[in-house]
Amino acid sequence: MQIARTIEDARMMIMEAKTRALREGRSTVTGFVPTMGYLHQGHASLLRQAREECGVRVLSIFVNPIQFGPKEDLSRYPRNEAGDLQLAEENGVDVVFLPSVEEMYPRAIKTSVQVADVTERLCGASRPGHFDGVATVVSKLFNIVQPDKAYFGMKDAQQVAVIEQMVFDLNIPVQIMPCPIIREADGLALSSRNVYLGVEERRQALILSETLKLTEDWLAECRGDFAAVKERMEAHIRTMPLADIDYVDLMLYPDIQPVYGLPVGEWAGRRLLAALAVRFGTTRLIDNRLFELGDGVSKTLRPAEQSRAGVSRV
Amino acid sequence: MQIARTIEDARMMIMEAKTRALREGRSTVTGFVPTMGYLHQGHASLLRQAREECGVRVLSIFVNPIQFGPKEDLSRYPRNEAGDLQLAEENGVDVVFLPSVEEMYPRAIKTSVQVADVTERLCGASRPGHFDGVATVVSKLFNIVQPDKAYFGMKDAQQVAVIEQMVFDLNIPVQIMPCPIIREADGLALSSRNVYLGVEERRQALILSETLKLTEDWLAECRGDFAAVKERMEAHIRTMPLADIDYVDLMLYPDIQPVYGLPVGEWAGRRLLAALAVRFGTTRLIDNRLFELGDGVSKTLRPAEQSRAGVSRV
Repeated sequence: MQIARTIEDARMMIMEAKTRALREGRSTVTGFVPTMGYLHQGHASLLRQAREECGVRVLSIFVNPIQFGPKEDLSRYPRNEAGDLQLAEENGVDVVFLPSVEEMYPRAIKTSVQVADVTERLCGASRPGHFDGVATVVSKLFNIVQPDKAYFGMKDAQQVAVIEQMVFDLNIPVQIMPCPIIREADGLALSSRNVYLGVEERRQALILSETLKLTEDWLAECRGDFAAVKERMEAHIRTMPLADIDYVDLMLYPDIQPVYGLPVGEWAGRRLLAALAVRFGTTRLIDNRLFELGDGVSKTLRPAEQSRAGVSRV
Repeated sequence: MQIARTIEDARMMIMEAKTRALREGRSTVTGFVPTMGYLHQGHASLLRQAREECGVRVLSIFVNPIQFGPKEDLSRYPRNEAGDLQLAEENGVDVVFLPSVEEMYPRAIKTSVQVADVTERLCGASRPGHFDGVATVVSKLFNIVQPDKAYFGMKDAQQVAVIEQMVFDLNIPVQIMPCPIIREADGLALSSRNVYLGVEERRQALILSETLKLTEDWLAECRGDFAAVKERMEAHIRTMPLADIDYVDLMLYPDIQPVYGLPVGEWAGRRLLAALAVRFGTTRLIDNRLFELGDGVSKTLRPAEQSRAGVSRV
């Protein structure tokens, strides 16, 4: 495994890794997993997926300042370079790109990549400018790594929708691979930010995955009254005194537009994202679950089944 | 020469052209000339430069709707596909990419690439949204063609500055090659829009290049009073009754920020763009000349010399 701290080194080392793959008769398909580090088993699952599908695997670790708001947790975002490199090595990474902020932004950046509509709601509404920062840095990383496939976790479902929209609109020659959310045994979605949680916060945070699990039943019963489901979700989360709701919402996916009032005639083939963001103390957690709408109210009762892209069928 | 009307065909034909170059022992360096068609000798000079430097040459012809304002000349923009293809063939093009609007924008585009600061003045001020449209379509074209070098005429000097800023900021793996302005024997800068000019407009339009030529002397005499030079430029253009000034300005290049009041101590190594946009009837023409500032007021007298990038030395 090689470690690149400059863009030039990254390009060279990726070229070398491709040459090596070619020489050894392996695929030169390049898989890329962009991260902010402090890697957990969610990231590991992306790396393993990349290892299965690609002869060349690139991981980037970069805590991207331009996707944090002025009052967000940039300065205290957790880091663990040694642990990250070990996890990368164990999961078959060829090149780790670990640039400094100065390497990525040698002077104030004047260009931004902005995606409209898909970024209006959910995290786009609570974190103004966040997705501009994400789309811009992912554009940069794609131009540096030039991957064939890029792997993103569905925990940031809106991020996947934004990146897919950007890739489509700008004809970026990369295939986006959404991967399922990885959870602790008790249901908590893995996140680098879980480390911030106190013991009692950690216990109460289980309400997120529990609510999303119950949402499946509530959707099955709701006969198209999605607003009622949203209210039940909120009420259930509020049973935990430490839970401070940022948003709870039901959105069409990948449009990220509200599903409320969608005529039953337009359900077929549409996906519904139940998404939430909740603060416990200063820690903001997100979680979601993706459902497939049936082709009529009576058919919303189909049992949920976890698929590769993390879709539950309702 | 092959003609691609779809993105898929363009990618395939470029791949084939590279393979052919490789097989024939030629360079696979790919040169790209993006245009809006109605090609003239200015475009031909870009194609010839690409032929000299690249084993694979790609031309795109696409009148990009999103870079036109609602009151601009999109619907009457001149077209001549047969003539364009002949000029392309004569100048060594391997692949012409000639997409429809539907091929480039199959649904309303939600992503835009925006460059700040460099786009605030000159054409950026008179044509709101224009450079967002340019940066976005050039991003798309770069992702489709994936060139090593891309050739742009310095007549659109601000466009070159915008593209260079975008390429730098987003780490796009392409080298931008600015090429000098090509003029008629009488000085008029070549432009597809010259075809709109009536006989008398065409005669009076010579005032643009004439003014820019005189600007060299005025700069040499001005002892740092750039505002006075701007006034002389405007007054000279106004001697033509049909000339309706959109802007006349002196800007630092490639910053595209006003040069007025720049302390002499900061001149060394800076470039100055004398730029103008003038309407004759409904036809808006632009022209410019690039100068190098000396390292002191007394040294602004250095004789101008046309270089490859169209820089005159003052």
